[in-house]
Amino acid sequence: MNFRAINHTIGMIILVEMGFMAPSLIWCWLDSDRATATAFGGTLLVMGLCAGLFLLVGRRAKGSIFAQEGFVTVAISWIVLSLLGCLPFYFSGAIPHYIDALFEVVSGFTTTGSSILADPAALSRGLLFWRSTTHWLGGMGILVFMLAILPASHRGALHLMQAESPGPTVSKFTPRLRQTSKILYTIYLALTLLCIAFLLAGGMPVFDSLCTAFGTAGTGGFGIKADSMASYSPYLQWVITVFMALFGVNFSVYYLLLMRQVGAAVKDEEVRLYFGIMIASGALIAWDIRYIIPDLSDRVRHAFFQVSSIMTTTGFSTVDFDVWPPFSKAILLCLMAVGACAGSTGGGFKVIRLAIMLKSLRRAIRHTLRPNSVQLVRVNGKVLADEVIHNVGAYLTAYVVILFGSFVLVSLDEFSLESNISAVFACFNNIGPGFAAAGPMSNFAAFSGLSKLVLSLDMLLGRLEIFPLLALASRHSWSRRL
Amino acid sequence: MNFRAINHTIGMIILVEMGFMAPSLIWCWLDSDRATATAFGGTLLVMGLCAGLFLLVGRRAKGSIFAQEGFVTVAISWIVLSLLGCLPFYFSGAIPHYIDALFEVVSGFTTTGSSILADPAALSRGLLFWRSTTHWLGGMGILVFMLAILPASHRGALHLMQAESPGPTVSKFTPRLRQTSKILYTIYLALTLLCIAFLLAGGMPVFDSLCTAFGTAGTGGFGIKADSMASYSPYLQWVITVFMALFGVNFSVYYLLLMRQVGAAVKDEEVRLYFGIMIASGALIAWDIRYIIPDLSDRVRHAFFQVSSIMTTTGFSTVDFDVWPPFSKAILLCLMAVGACAGSTGGGFKVIRLAIMLKSLRRAIRHTLRPNSVQLVRVNGKVLADEVIHNVGAYLTAYVVILFGSFVLVSLDEFSLESNISAVFACFNNIGPGFAAAGPMSNFAAFSGLSKLVLSLDMLLGRLEIFPLLALASRHSWSRRL
Repeated sequence: MNFRAINHTIGMIILVEMGFMAPSLIWCWLDSDRATATAFGGTLLVMGLCAGLFLLVGRRAKGSIFAQEGFVTVAISWIVLSLLGCLPFYFSGAIPHYIDALFEVVSGFTTTGSSILADPAALSRGLLFWRSTTHWLGGMGILVFMLAILPASHRGALHLMQAESPGPTVSKFTPRLRQTSKILYTIYLALTLLCIAFLLAGGMPVFDSLCTAFGTAGTGGFGIKADSMASYSPYLQWVITVFMALFGVNFSVYYLLLMRQVGAAVKDEEVRLYFGIMIASGALIAWDIRYIIPDLSDRVRHAFFQVSSIMTTTGFSTVDFDVWPPFSKAILLCLMAVGACAGSTGGGFKVIRLAIMLKSLRRAIRHTLRPNSVQLVRVNGKVLADEVIHNVGAYLTAYVVILFGSFVLVSLDEFSLESNISAVFACFNNIGPGFAAAGPMSNFAAFSGLSKLVLSLDMLLGRLEIFPLLALASRHSWSRRL
Repeated sequence: MNFRAINHTIGMIILVEMGFMAPSLIWCWLDSDRATATAFGGTLLVMGLCAGLFLLVGRRAKGSIFAQEGFVTVAISWIVLSLLGCLPFYFSGAIPHYIDALFEVVSGFTTTGSSILADPAALSRGLLFWRSTTHWLGGMGILVFMLAILPASHRGALHLMQAESPGPTVSKFTPRLRQTSKILYTIYLALTLLCIAFLLAGGMPVFDSLCTAFGTAGTGGFGIKADSMASYSPYLQWVITVFMALFGVNFSVYYLLLMRQVGAAVKDEEVRLYFGIMIASGALIAWDIRYIIPDLSDRVRHAFFQVSSIMTTTGFSTVDFDVWPPFSKAILLCLMAVGACAGSTGGGFKVIRLAIMLKSLRRAIRHTLRPNSVQLVRVNGKVLADEVIHNVGAYLTAYVVILFGSFVLVSLDEFSLESNISAVFACFNNIGPGFAAAGPMSNFAAFSGLSKLVLSLDMLLGRLEIFPLLALASRHSWSRRL
């Protein structure tokens, strides 16, 4: 294990985080908010010291780095990012307990959007802006950003990207990784700016537009109001619905569109399944809530807003869907588990994994019925390697085991089974709100310190797709042999 | 597809069912219960006609039968068994709706133990005895029984056994299948008789002892009293606790003990994990319910009774565990999912599958960290074929998809999320009671007809381990090519 290279990377990552934190100070300046500015100043000081320390003991990697080091680097980076990123909330006194501040910022970086705040509007604009910035940064990934801006550092950088990007495989648009990262962030930035433009056009104030667009782009879900998106106009709610859905799409599809390969983009199996599930769920829920929301256009809007929000794992809400009938809630719970597309900013199990597992199930059945026949699993016309299928199966195992384990630990708090299951679901799948005690009109403040730590870990496990953190815990990562 | 061979087998199966139904008439005779006797008489008449019809159009298979035919035969047999086996309840008027009677008897054959009856004690003894007999027959499997008593019919009979026996692989004790089936049923019968003896020794009446032993042996869970096992003495409750645990053990371990291979039996990984989970769960729950049941010995007894009952998927209860704290209920929910050992009469996902999935997860992590290393999955010292791991992964997929799908359908009834999840869990894993509306002191009568059908299907899917019923639905089974 090349610890000096890891230290170097972490030092650089902290510098990037500092760069992203700086713009929040503008709002302190606009609001003449000295207290918050001081908190940011103190944080930047601490971060600067840490970055210096890491860079001092680290050294830029010369040769390749190995898969193992990539995974460990990503896992440690995200933990350090969170430990430092929560300091403004803690220093300013806006969130008096460190563990609560950590929960909040982990929720931000992992684009979960679960909050311990009853009313986010009580925060200063500087803190609110930083809170939403974490969504934007965490959505596409901070290491991917670093790869995009730094000169091509080492051949093993692919492992960093692999560890941070969601999905069973990484799409390399170009042979050069730096180019791929740049393209990703350019598409990301362009879509975000488009979202901001549409929001501004609907009369949303500049500050609200920026924060909402960040939350939408990262599929995060932090709102700046206690009622999330309920008080915005129907036009704005539709804009957000559409953009949430767009940010849940695999970005390689946008790249295909840019390359004018419209045919391939439209035929992508994952995206088809993604929109298919979304439209079917929206229609079923719109039918199910007919007695709760009598007006047809309201009903359709609220149904599709919630479906888009939950399936992309954003977590914005326009209504208290906790009071919807059990059938609608059951559908939402399923969508929580499925999640968005791989290679998007969304979380969850990912549509492509579901597709692969279902195809591999079909293969197993056919093989059982006709043991001598040869069955292959194809996605988008390409035969999948057995190793990918194995890994998806292993991922499902880890997913289920972590869900059950967290559920048992969170159950030590005396909440209902419904609250516990949906809190774990909402955090692990990076959604935000669940049902009952974790519902959209409630928050996570009431959970115990242990539960908040477990849920924070779940958020990280969900965002980094389990393996990097398991790699961190594996003794193989720490043994001398490589 | 050799339909004539399938018809022949189904005809034979109905004859076996008639043979097992006959003893219930003894209780009608003892109680001079003409009404029930008439219902049984009518049922036997219908069954005789059906059997005759199937045997008339069928013909005994000469050559081998194929995997596909084995699976389809088992699936159809179980459906026919249930459609006919519920008639005594319906004819006697004890359960006025056919769909309720069907639910009850499917619950019996699949050894689930979910009931739509508020008070089973209201049934006549003849019906109660038949109800418990279905547990005993379903536990080890009716096709396995048929293989044991009939002369070795065809080489493909292994497929029948494979389709009906729980677990990822079938243990063949001897090269001859008929011998294996005989050994299985001999062990099963001997353990059941032992259980009856211990119950009688504790002063339980003969009728109660027989019914309770049948429910324990098949890990079924139908009680003959409304409070299940609550009113029996602590001694009797301990006897049932131990025997439930014993019937959840892989029967191949008993065969090893008979062959005096004690070392191999004691080292069996699945059985070790099974008892490990059971003891740990019992201890945790005994600690968690300390404020609810102050007396230590009562607390330990109730904790271990419930753990043994839920993990073996029996479903007896001595207390209303629905009022236990969330932590205990969370553990029980996990145990519901894990289930008992493969090759036992218990249901659930099976301990061995959990072990295989965890080992395959560990392999995937190691392989991700060190792509060039070769990693094998071993169980009991033997390397597992990739195909077995694939199939277990496919099984997990099917398991999760069916759980979510059933949950959504059952949610159309307006019960709570907790009721719906635990009802599906309890039926699909063949346990019996769940929580809330499906709790141990409640019953399934309040669910809608659709839900009862969905849950009945879940019970069959759980007992037959999904694949046979999926095979029935696969168009490959019905295509002419073989």
